[in-house]
Amino acid sequence: MLAKVNEDLLKERKHCDFNVLELTNYLDGGRKATEDRRKLEARVLKTKGLQDDIPEEYLSHKEKYENAIRKAVTYYRVIKETADPNQSDEERAMSSYRSLLPSAVFKDMSPFRLHYSMFMPAIIGQADEEQKKYWLKRAVNFEIIGTYAQTELGHGTFIRGLETRATYDPKTEEFVLHSPTLTSYKWWPGSLAHTANYCVVMAHLFIKGKSCGIQPFMVQLRDEETHLPLPGIKLGEIGAKLGFNTVNNGFLGFEHHRIKRDRMLMKNSQVLRDGTFIKSPNNKLAYGTMVYVRVIIVYGMSNQLARSATIAVRYSAVRRQSPLKPDEPEPQILDYVTQQHKLFIAIASSHAIRLIAQWLWDLYTKVNNDLKLGNTSDLPELHALACCLKAVTTADTATMVERCRMSCGGHGYMLSSNLPQIYGLVTAACTYEGENTVLMLQTARSLVKAWDWAATGMPLGPTMSYLKDKNTGLERWENTIDGIIRGFRKVAVGKISSAVSSLKKYTKRGLSPEDAWNMSSVQLVAAAEAHCRAVILSTYKSEVEKTTTSLSEPLRRVLHQLVELYCIYWALEKLGDLLLFTSISERDVQQLQSTYEGLLGKIRPNAVGLVDAFDFRDEILNSTLGVSDGRVYERLMEEALKSPLNAEPVNQSFHKYLKPFMQGKL
Amino acid sequence: MLAKVNEDLLKERKHCDFNVLELTNYLDGGRKATEDRRKLEARVLKTKGLQDDIPEEYLSHKEKYENAIRKAVTYYRVIKETADPNQSDEERAMSSYRSLLPSAVFKDMSPFRLHYSMFMPAIIGQADEEQKKYWLKRAVNFEIIGTYAQTELGHGTFIRGLETRATYDPKTEEFVLHSPTLTSYKWWPGSLAHTANYCVVMAHLFIKGKSCGIQPFMVQLRDEETHLPLPGIKLGEIGAKLGFNTVNNGFLGFEHHRIKRDRMLMKNSQVLRDGTFIKSPNNKLAYGTMVYVRVIIVYGMSNQLARSATIAVRYSAVRRQSPLKPDEPEPQILDYVTQQHKLFIAIASSHAIRLIAQWLWDLYTKVNNDLKLGNTSDLPELHALACCLKAVTTADTATMVERCRMSCGGHGYMLSSNLPQIYGLVTAACTYEGENTVLMLQTARSLVKAWDWAATGMPLGPTMSYLKDKNTGLERWENTIDGIIRGFRKVAVGKISSAVSSLKKYTKRGLSPEDAWNMSSVQLVAAAEAHCRAVILSTYKSEVEKTTTSLSEPLRRVLHQLVELYCIYWALEKLGDLLLFTSISERDVQQLQSTYEGLLGKIRPNAVGLVDAFDFRDEILNSTLGVSDGRVYERLMEEALKSPLNAEPVNQSFHKYLKPFMQGKL
Repeated sequence: MLAKVNEDLLKERKHCDFNVLELTNYLDGGRKATEDRRKLEARVLKTKGLQDDIPEEYLSHKEKYENAIRKAVTYYRVIKETADPNQSDEERAMSSYRSLLPSAVFKDMSPFRLHYSMFMPAIIGQADEEQKKYWLKRAVNFEIIGTYAQTELGHGTFIRGLETRATYDPKTEEFVLHSPTLTSYKWWPGSLAHTANYCVVMAHLFIKGKSCGIQPFMVQLRDEETHLPLPGIKLGEIGAKLGFNTVNNGFLGFEHHRIKRDRMLMKNSQVLRDGTFIKSPNNKLAYGTMVYVRVIIVYGMSNQLARSATIAVRYSAVRRQSPLKPDEPEPQILDYVTQQHKLFIAIASSHAIRLIAQWLWDLYTKVNNDLKLGNTSDLPELHALACCLKAVTTADTATMVERCRMSCGGHGYMLSSNLPQIYGLVTAACTYEGENTVLMLQTARSLVKAWDWAATGMPLGPTMSYLKDKNTGLERWENTIDGIIRGFRKVAVGKISSAVSSLKKYTKRGLSPEDAWNMSSVQLVAAAEAHCRAVILSTYKSEVEKTTTSLSEPLRRVLHQLVELYCIYWALEKLGDLLLFTSISERDVQQLQSTYEGLLGKIRPNAVGLVDAFDFRDEILNSTLGVSDGRVYERLMEEALKSPLNAEPVNQSFHKYLKPFMQGKL
Repeated sequence: MLAKVNEDLLKERKHCDFNVLELTNYLDGGRKATEDRRKLEARVLKTKGLQDDIPEEYLSHKEKYENAIRKAVTYYRVIKETADPNQSDEERAMSSYRSLLPSAVFKDMSPFRLHYSMFMPAIIGQADEEQKKYWLKRAVNFEIIGTYAQTELGHGTFIRGLETRATYDPKTEEFVLHSPTLTSYKWWPGSLAHTANYCVVMAHLFIKGKSCGIQPFMVQLRDEETHLPLPGIKLGEIGAKLGFNTVNNGFLGFEHHRIKRDRMLMKNSQVLRDGTFIKSPNNKLAYGTMVYVRVIIVYGMSNQLARSATIAVRYSAVRRQSPLKPDEPEPQILDYVTQQHKLFIAIASSHAIRLIAQWLWDLYTKVNNDLKLGNTSDLPELHALACCLKAVTTADTATMVERCRMSCGGHGYMLSSNLPQIYGLVTAACTYEGENTVLMLQTARSLVKAWDWAATGMPLGPTMSYLKDKNTGLERWENTIDGIIRGFRKVAVGKISSAVSSLKKYTKRGLSPEDAWNMSSVQLVAAAEAHCRAVILSTYKSEVEKTTTSLSEPLRRVLHQLVELYCIYWALEKLGDLLLFTSISERDVQQLQSTYEGLLGKIRPNAVGLVDAFDFRDEILNSTLGVSDGRVYERLMEEALKSPLNAEPVNQSFHKYLKPFMQGKL
């Protein structure tokens, strides 16, 4: 029996005034890309052994892990089988990172995630050619499963503070790895606890008592036959977390564990047999991998936000609540303007972040090619951009995913909605790969430097060149997208200027430059955010203009509405800044508010079409509230009935505890 | 062996310049209150049977419930034993709701929570004297365990839309309870699934085919001996959630289930034997219970925020990260001004919200006494206040708890920090007992009404009387606490005025009043928030002034610093509003920013003292990061080692899946 589609959803789809498939193709990057993605999804999702008997949320922590391993071997077998035979090992290692397929399979996270996201990239970025050839082949073919261990129990952000030691012994031509303290234990790496048998370990290298900085080492953790930890290696699981519970985060300690000299990854620095240390020619090279990982994170945010918006918008089209007018039926909650205010910005943000990620990726590729030619001049700007874009997009996504969840009322609190889990995953991105406040301060440092350069007439990179236009802010405000973008640039100029003044004020009072920096850091973070908003707004607008020229008129109109919505939303959100640093008037503000309310009304009829175009299969949404047929209440009940607590009418605890208690016998 | 206290924490405690116990007494409401609380905590927490063998986060959903029931019977036996014999049943029913002891025992939530928070209050508020006497006695003595069922799968906010029917049959003098649709199933009540055997059910009463509104019914759900659901009653569990997983939320459906006439709770409306319906004389009476529940929620927010701040501040005093200056050791992260900015506002907010809750409670008590004398005039203002205060304090708390969590970096993501769980509990409060946006719009409705009254010269309640001062905002701005409070009132006036103009604009364009309301609702919510902020700021300030006169000078100074911090924080946060509606200048803003940075520095040496004064036992914090001895890393490792995954060096999944996979045999 085919399930009927909810009437309200049918109606929404009928009233959508653009071609949904055209938008899907646009988002995928072409018709062929959509077709390929759909084919792979269909193939993977029909594979036997990838389904759960009991929904994951009812399992114990241990069972969740075991269940994920069961599915992982099946999933990655399919990935291996479907790999393009013409791809090099390196291409295979770097492919498929943008897919949400693993979400559909693992619900939470793949226990092999670090193998792809960190282990293989570390080999590519840090192993010499011979090492790379050997290790990458083994890794790509899953002969070994690897992870990457940098963070320690007591050390995160500050790499040079890592305590794990690698002491070179020239007699045996070995490194001795050792964890001198509890705080030196590696802590956090995914797959590390029980899954990986190899690991790239970052450790402080000492040769003949002399520090040679933090270096990468390929360390075998477990015997390939028995999987037992090798002697001198202590491994374990770090415990349950808000999310990522199937990713198997672990700890790792060394007790004078010896590895051969050729296990140091020697692309950058080298240690010769006799202990001679050859330093890496350029310490900026490591930025490359960091930027790569951050681009991937920004992509992921766009995807997760699209998923959340899909769930919340579909549910809001189905849910009816509280009559607007006395004698009328309860409306779809999507008709409430407060609900539109919460949801449509999530759709627009997903588009914006996706285009930003693509743009950042192109920039990364360009700078990477320049690097190969020995040109590192654009690296600092790219680094500053990647820092603030990672921080701002993860923070925005977390806020908006949570708003999507709460817009679904109580039902959004249920794990079967999948919204709490998505939040768990995106909020983690605010912390990993560079804590957001730390990253914002790195961007701020570049901005302050650029500010000084601008004063002396030195050239600035393209994303910072606007810093030279130190206008007074008295120029006439314009209530247009371009006017808003110009306004945000003025805000950035104003905030950087204020932060620089604050630095000067504190140094004048006798503070050291470091203390002045610290005292001004709240303002510096605000300045970096202002810069980042200006970049995002202008890039979103220009990328939409660039990429939509061949689209049909109705679709272009909708995409431009989203750009306008996004710009006005942020103008109203950051009104204080605009009022301080531009000539926007109260009347302008009222007009923006009115235009914003009008835009919500224009987008309303296309809202379901917009989220349908993200083209998530129900398995990838994995949400009772987001199902494409809109049969929300049936799904909620179906999922509830899968709870093992519902297998018996009376739980054993009644006889053991409740009854004696109520009868006063306990 | 006594564990040593972390050196940094010792140093912090030595440098605190006020008397911590004096602050604890102040927060508890007197020395005796502190002593009583400590005694009860000591007694409960040493009770055998209240400890966990395995930390809750490692258990399956079903095991969590069974474990909670095991502890519940022990815990509530102690509560029964320690009850004051002079208390009436009603006093016993309403006592102990402010304690965080259940958090220490259940980690998540007590499976009897609804028995106290809803079932007994419903009996007190809705049963007639005879019913009350009978049911309350049984409930207080735990002869029965009850819950309260209102929300349905398809119906939340709009009470009149509830579908569950109670049809009176005068022949048998029974009500027939029936759930006509899937969406009419009761959904969400805690304890409902497998714990409670009685329930107050809200159902739509029909007599002789005529609707008599939504009425409360006492329904027996399960046989007292066998605990089996009675015939015609379908019960089950709704599944896993973001939090509250041991509270046993359930669903409930009726199939023409019959109950006797005397099972309708008849304090307000009555049904006579022959089916004559006597309507409640005042439909505003139900507001009372709602306000009561919301006051309790506001209290809870203050407690949970204090807990989170304690965890994050202590951890920040212990954690050292990234040198500020090249050749100095890594500082305590509490020395970073960005960290102080995240944390100190959480301490101040906990104080503010606690005083607001106390103030709202006093107001509630006063209005309730007036009600008994037949005076309902203050009820609308109290209702409007309780709506926005619940909404704003829950939203602020959720934001700040999450900021505390993220300020602890990766470790804050671990469940052993307890911060994710606290977030799960507080974010739920944004939705339950009135969804926040809905509540804000209710307050907005009162404000718009008050605005009209003010225009016609009618008197306004004390918290709204400032609406009459429709000054132009050109009055000189003053950078003082009082100046900020006046500023916030002007903002509220400005925003309400704008929202009212917007309503007029849309009706002029031909929209119905309802559609104009909907179109303006984003602005109306903002207006209600502005009003609420003005109330909170002024109340926080005046309550601190009122309650601290007998305190020592050092403590008063610290408490006033928190008030100042709170006011300036919100001024800077809502700068756009102040710039729009007051005469604050750019120079004023810079000065406020500078004062704010100075205040962070003044509070810094007392930060640990301030959170120590919240006086949470380690069992109540239940956090590896918040332990009072600061031995954070030892606790993280100890807790990790409790993970059942760490019981074996090689997980069974290696032999079953990983090995064959890596060897290409799968």
